[in-house]
Amino acid sequence: MSMKKFINYFRGNKQTSANIAKERLKIIVAHQRVEQTSTDFLPQLRQELVTVIAKYVKIDLDQVKVELERDENHTVLELNITIPETAEA
Amino acid sequence: MSMKKFINYFRGNKQTSANIAKERLKIIVAHQRVEQTSTDFLPQLRQELVTVIAKYVKIDLDQVKVELERDENHTVLELNITIPETAEA
Repeated sequence: MSMKKFINYFRGNKQTSANIAKERLKIIVAHQRVEQTSTDFLPQLRQELVTVIAKYVKIDLDQVKVELERDENHTVLELNITIPETAEA
Repeated sequence: MSMKKFINYFRGNKQTSANIAKERLKIIVAHQRVEQTSTDFLPQLRQELVTVIAKYVKIDLDQVKVELERDENHTVLELNITIPETAEA
């Protein structure tokens, strides 16, 4: 249920079957802050996440799209990674 | 827009104002796999994510809720972390 909702979010725009066949990774980190008391560490987190993910899948840095958005109480970091097709089995 | 949509997802159930005042972190990693060709590495990723986040905020491991769900093409890892109130300024 919650997963279905998220997968719809993951898919976002309507996709062609070509898009659907791509291997992709979406990472969202949402931080609900309490006023000004807490540090906004998501920008620094970005690089660390990419480093961790790169241990598991080959990442082409050109294929990493990063968005960072804030409102008064939230910071949301979103990474969209298209995983390159690998030649090796 | 996309952020608003996600913040609604982040909020999930209706919350009391007490809940809203808590500092929270939600991490979602969604992996769109291509059939059986790709490794499902999200379970191993879980611990690494907690380790990375713990560099920035104090994490009480009791306050980390982990969900992992799969369908034929997707694996979704979701971590919900309530950040303990810190005594130090």
